[in-house]
Amino acid sequence: MSSLQTFAGKQDFIFRQLLEYKSFTYTYLLADIDSGEAVLIDPVIETVDRDVKLINDMGLKLLYGVNTHVHADHITGTGKLKEKIPTCKSVISKVGKAKADIHLNHGDKIKFGKHELEARSTPGHTNGCMTYVWHEKGLAFTGDAVLIRGCGRTDFQEGDSSTLFDSVHKQIFSLPQDYKLYPAHDYTGQTSTTVAEETKFNPRLSKPKEEFVQIMKNLNLPYPKQIDKALPANLLCGIQPE
Amino acid sequence: MSSLQTFAGKQDFIFRQLLEYKSFTYTYLLADIDSGEAVLIDPVIETVDRDVKLINDMGLKLLYGVNTHVHADHITGTGKLKEKIPTCKSVISKVGKAKADIHLNHGDKIKFGKHELEARSTPGHTNGCMTYVWHEKGLAFTGDAVLIRGCGRTDFQEGDSSTLFDSVHKQIFSLPQDYKLYPAHDYTGQTSTTVAEETKFNPRLSKPKEEFVQIMKNLNLPYPKQIDKALPANLLCGIQPE
Ligand SMILES: [Fe+2]
Ligand SMILES: [Fe+2]
Repeated sequence: MSSLQTFAGKQDFIFRQLLEYKSFTYTYLLADIDSGEAVLIDPVIETVDRDVKLINDMGLKLLYGVNTHVHADHITGTGKLKEKIPTCKSVISKVGKAKADIHLNHGDKIKFGKHELEARSTPGHTNGCMTYVWHEKGLAFTGDAVLIRGCGRTDFQEGDSSTLFDSVHKQIFSLPQDYKLYPAHDYTGQTSTTVAEETKFNPRLSKPKEEFVQIMKNLNLPYPKQIDKALPANLLCGIQPE
Repeated sequence: MSSLQTFAGKQDFIFRQLLEYKSFTYTYLLADIDSGEAVLIDPVIETVDRDVKLINDMGLKLLYGVNTHVHADHITGTGKLKEKIPTCKSVISKVGKAKADIHLNHGDKIKFGKHELEARSTPGHTNGCMTYVWHEKGLAFTGDAVLIRGCGRTDFQEGDSSTLFDSVHKQIFSLPQDYKLYPAHDYTGQTSTTVAEETKFNPRLSKPKEEFVQIMKNLNLPYPKQIDKALPANLLCGIQPE
């Protein structure tokens, strides 16, 4: 048994969910056990050292640091990741206008080893939000579009609740019912969900569109704490200008 | 496709890792997709309502609330769980002398649907620590015996580093290299590991026994914050005496 196979457990791919406790962000490490090629989704600047240590311990070749969107609540780790692993390329949607090595359009693929993720444009929380679907494994990384029993805010940063509703229903809830969904955040201590559960139990997104728009209008959330620092930094790939 | 199958994703069992942010505790929900019979490992009193909602949403029949050991850092949720779901039985090792409906010895099995967990006695952090092994799926729930790149403390509550070392090497590191390990806590934001990784990379438990004992002796950790409240409560199954 190769060591990469042992790190994968009984599965034929490495999958690790990692979390950052300050912003409640989930980072995902995916890797192919034959080539060792890997992808890191939504790294956070504070936890890049932890992630790089894990990647190096396992002997993985990190190809891409991928953002689901321009985050308002934390500084992306992709800039620091590229300093630590110079062969790694940063990836984000073209629409978000953030600096990155690779800009994705709806339908583009991210390949690592024999695997690929499909980028689906799911605007509404921000214009550039992408959901990454791993069809072969029946998983999707939904960023802030679908959270577990919740969804991303639509009251700042180009947010639009009507657009978000359409994105979720056309691009995510239309996936097979048993697809697992992995969000960018969770504030209740849950780590994953499925299309089946969110279509049934999501207290916002399971409602008709008009009701959803009303719910989102009435949330009255406070302005996010880190947004003024995080947004400009993330547009520059997380590298703070001197 | 049955709704329980959709909640399981592409797997043939339901598995959810849940976390409690105050004590950094992981709770695990396991369920059989044919019968709906379920087990909850290491529930925390503060998050029982969340867990019961998830169990009820999915329509599961919770048979057991299982503790890996008498916790010092949080109050177990098994008492409250039994109030909310009266058919649920609390389970813990016989050695720990805590109140529970079912007391396990080394080698005993916990059955739910067509599945079973093997209880392995892994003392050292406490005398009554149990590791629960799900051989069919290649998983083990290690409590505080093995943490990700760490281990439970051995400086209070009957702790003994030499005993812990022997437990881990005989009962956990002897499992197949590709078994996934799920601990009771993680303070670094990691969610799982494997036997392969901990035998190679655990900075304490990968060392020879004498060195491990020295490392544990020199940790000099502060006395745990919640221990004076949590320990007596947990010995009574988490139900506070009036
Ligand atoms: Fe966001
Ligand atoms: Fe403990």
